[in-house]
Amino acid sequence: MKNACLKFHCIDQPGIVSAISNFLFERNINIITLEQHAEEGVYFNRIEWKDLNNWEDEAAFKKDFERICKKFDGHIEVHFFKNIQTLGLFTSREPHTLLEILAKIETGELPNVKIPFIISNYDDDTISKRHNIPFFFIPTKNNPNYEKKQIEIIQKFKPNFVGLARYMKILSADFINQSGCPIINIHHSFLPSFVGANPYELAYQRGVKLIGATSHFVIPALDQGPIIEQDITRVRSGYSVSKMKQIGSDTEKRVFANAIKKVLEHKTIIYKGRTIVFE
Amino acid sequence: MKNACLKFHCIDQPGIVSAISNFLFERNINIITLEQHAEEGVYFNRIEWKDLNNWEDEAAFKKDFERICKKFDGHIEVHFFKNIQTLGLFTSREPHTLLEILAKIETGELPNVKIPFIISNYDDDTISKRHNIPFFFIPTKNNPNYEKKQIEIIQKFKPNFVGLARYMKILSADFINQSGCPIINIHHSFLPSFVGANPYELAYQRGVKLIGATSHFVIPALDQGPIIEQDITRVRSGYSVSKMKQIGSDTEKRVFANAIKKVLEHKTIIYKGRTIVFE
Amino acid sequence: MKNACLKFHCIDQPGIVSAISNFLFERNINIITLEQHAEEGVYFNRIEWKDLNNWEDEAAFKKDFERICKKFDGHIEVHFFKNIQTLGLFTSREPHTLLEILAKIETGELPNVKIPFIISNYDDDTISKRHNIPFFFIPTKNNPNYEKKQIEIIQKFKPNFVGLARYMKILSADFINQSGCPIINIHHSFLPSFVGANPYELAYQRGVKLIGATSHFVIPALDQGPIIEQDITRVRSGYSVSKMKQIGSDTEKRVFANAIKKVLEHKTIIYKGRTIVFE
Amino acid sequence: MKNACLKFHCIDQPGIVSAISNFLFERNINIITLEQHAEEGVYFNRIEWKDLNNWEDEAAFKKDFERICKKFDGHIEVHFFKNIQTLGLFTSREPHTLLEILAKIETGELPNVKIPFIISNYDDDTISKRHNIPFFFIPTKNNPNYEKKQIEIIQKFKPNFVGLARYMKILSADFINQSGCPIINIHHSFLPSFVGANPYELAYQRGVKLIGATSHFVIPALDQGPIIEQDITRVRSGYSVSKMKQIGSDTEKRVFANAIKKVLEHKTIIYKGRTIVFE
Repeated sequence: MKNACLKFHCIDQPGIVSAISNFLFERNINIITLEQHAEEGVYFNRIEWKDLNNWEDEAAFKKDFERICKKFDGHIEVHFFKNIQTLGLFTSREPHTLLEILAKIETGELPNVKIPFIISNYDDDTISKRHNIPFFFIPTKNNPNYEKKQIEIIQKFKPNFVGLARYMKILSADFINQSGCPIINIHHSFLPSFVGANPYELAYQRGVKLIGATSHFVIPALDQGPIIEQDITRVRSGYSVSKMKQIGSDTEKRVFANAIKKVLEHKTIIYKGRTIVFE
Repeated sequence: MKNACLKFHCIDQPGIVSAISNFLFERNINIITLEQHAEEGVYFNRIEWKDLNNWEDEAAFKKDFERICKKFDGHIEVHFFKNIQTLGLFTSREPHTLLEILAKIETGELPNVKIPFIISNYDDDTISKRHNIPFFFIPTKNNPNYEKKQIEIIQKFKPNFVGLARYMKILSADFINQSGCPIINIHHSFLPSFVGANPYELAYQRGVKLIGATSHFVIPALDQGPIIEQDITRVRSGYSVSKMKQIGSDTEKRVFANAIKKVLEHKTIIYKGRTIVFE
Repeated sequence: MKNACLKFHCIDQPGIVSAISNFLFERNINIITLEQHAEEGVYFNRIEWKDLNNWEDEAAFKKDFERICKKFDGHIEVHFFKNIQTLGLFTSREPHTLLEILAKIETGELPNVKIPFIISNYDDDTISKRHNIPFFFIPTKNNPNYEKKQIEIIQKFKPNFVGLARYMKILSADFINQSGCPIINIHHSFLPSFVGANPYELAYQRGVKLIGATSHFVIPALDQGPIIEQDITRVRSGYSVSKMKQIGSDTEKRVFANAIKKVLEHKTIIYKGRTIVFE
Repeated sequence: MKNACLKFHCIDQPGIVSAISNFLFERNINIITLEQHAEEGVYFNRIEWKDLNNWEDEAAFKKDFERICKKFDGHIEVHFFKNIQTLGLFTSREPHTLLEILAKIETGELPNVKIPFIISNYDDDTISKRHNIPFFFIPTKNNPNYEKKQIEIIQKFKPNFVGLARYMKILSADFINQSGCPIINIHHSFLPSFVGANPYELAYQRGVKLIGATSHFVIPALDQGPIIEQDITRVRSGYSVSKMKQIGSDTEKRVFANAIKKVLEHKTIIYKGRTIVFE
């Protein structure tokens, strides 16, 4: 029913909603959802609509819309939902987040998305084979050029996004720059607590009563990227680190899948190191 | 900063957002928040704004707005936040929800609200006295005319709303009709489960793993009114009914205070037996 | 490390903990976890232990323990974790709960369990084939004897448990009696609200603010069986029934998998229509 | 019904449960709840019981129990619930956590506790007066000796515990040493994130999706003390820092009151910088 959306942000000023809604109304487009808010003088807006005329000239529409954008000195993206998006996945030994993404594609909860490849530093193609997804084993131990090989695969498949499904290796700044697409990570702590390795061990030692997971866009500074989604689970006294890991894995897969869904639905805007997330 | 809001609903049709936002823009009014959604062919909208001209003629503004309303055959309410609202409270033996409302008025979380009276069927004015609120003890046992006396007090003070802070008596249809204002109740179960008396006992016997509370507008059918807010707490095996009551009381007071806040902030629309609640 | 557990319940009386712990201490067995509580005059206890002597005569151990049991007129079960358990699954069109169980077996979160068969009334063996699980398509439409065929399969494989992974057909009392093992269902509402068909539609119409899922043991009375696990998710105004279904599916799969895990870990005791669940 | 409890911890070893339960059984004492767990080789246990003989010689009981303690080289505390405990409170400008504690005393959720004094660095005795609690205004600005005066009051009233109800000043190591009782703080972040001043501002800038509160025992290192209780609330894009503060205040008061309750019910053991919390 809904067939397109736009994301828009600009300096907050009167008349924005009026201008955008007039533009859509003139084209006989019915707004399905409109969500907006302003923070620190910046206005953020996302609109989903149904095109009553089944109008399909994407390029022309986008060009027309850019006039509004210019008037407000804003930044806009327009997306048509019929277009398929691609999400390349990196993984390692722990499969829970990978299985969750594949399950959500299978049930239709992540519609119109394809996984063009799975790259792993752990030599097990069981899951990839089962789902007929090209698998590339690229060891990271004693293999100084592994990032070069990963970039070759990314450049071959040109995914819209890369998801790090518990890949567990730190990406170099060079890799991030050369990847050419946003990279989404899942970190197994409630950031900014417990950056880096062994967050469950650190959580245990600090005696926190809730353990969390955080999905964020990757930037060169480790675990510092704009946060997309977070959630937590309560732990009780007596839980060992390994029980925390087991319980936490459910939080991780839920947070990662929700973040991926937000990104694929064009519900995120990165602004000054933070992610604006629409509902 | 924000000084007014409107709530609007009508049959869903193209052009609504455009018409409303143009109206506000023409008056140099800056929209702070705009929230809208459509359900089953009906469009619901709530807007908060800042009036840049410090324009204050409420009546004229409302009259002008009604033209838009008529065009779409819609229903509108406009509220100016500077106006103080009154909330009459009914209570009984358990003070936790009453104390929560008074605490939130004291901290400023429920701004611009006054409690004109507290009516109780339990003869204890400790809390009322402490807060200088007129207290009326109206026994309900062996007192066939108690509703008549309650209505007299309501008609004297003419509150904007009545809140039943664990009052625990069923209101007659006559009472509800004569009260002349919306009545908000807190029920100590996750409705529609466990309507009526002793919900914690029923929850225990059914062996549910979560206990809840529900705040709703009162209609003659017991615990069937439009739901405003709900929440739950996890219970564990071994919890007795009295432990459930104690834990549940925290959920009750949170749910009741949140519902009262939504109502006082004009964030609710009753539509076909349901409450549309804005964020 | 832990290699066995026992579940015990009897009329509450002094000396139970003392008798059980002495019994284990005399056999040089180290208690790892001990959880107990009393409700309405009944004492429930579950103990996990490590056998320091790597003592393995299960039958003798159980027989010895029964003496204590008799003394207190109690009911006991002893389980050794090395024994593999089997869980037969019934499913239909919606695969999310099935995929979750298979994922948790694959990640090791449900250890030592095998799926001997999948029975479906929807003719799609994609998932079964992928996991090498025997698949039986038994249509339920225009097929009066379908329960007879299902029982034949159950009697052939003799699973320890049957899980209804969104199977969506009501089981007859005969079927339940003949199945010979506990049956665990997932119902897509917060029971006792919205028993039977179309719970999300009913939840939408009632205007609840939280939607839930409930996993319970199956008894002949529809959705009335002892509840094992429940959870909820918040819904916002504007969510359609189909959005509720999508969001709810995550709650369903989490609740079902957690309930299955509790059952497989011998952490449930059915008592007077309720399930005692250990942590 | 329950009239006493004990907390016990020692190096984990076989025979502990057996020894303790035999001791209680010999005295005709009925265990109501028994909770235990072992972590990293240490065994923690808490037992609540009903004394069937209405036996009341506390000192003799404790002395007898110490024999068991010695045998296992353990540490024990025994508490009789009839004894009233005292909780001195420090506060400042924000009253929400203070009001919550007073409300819970009034409703009986915090039974058998008295507030001997309220110390504030903000000159407003409205609440203290209302509840007839001695109030001491001790300014902290331009008043180098304020900690000395606070200690004098503590030494006069000798409370069992001190609670910092959003007192917002850092305590010196000297103060902590001289106070002579455990001090419980509420910090308005999900520790270890956002230690120190302005945690909501820091949370906003980092773009976290959940904001939290943490109650902990105070040690000289700022916000590093053993955590007793934590909880979080979800925030959405568009929430300003001041909205976060308002929403967060509900989490703060709930977390602080729950932590105070755990401490007063003798459900906490500090061990190696962490708090073991019993249910």
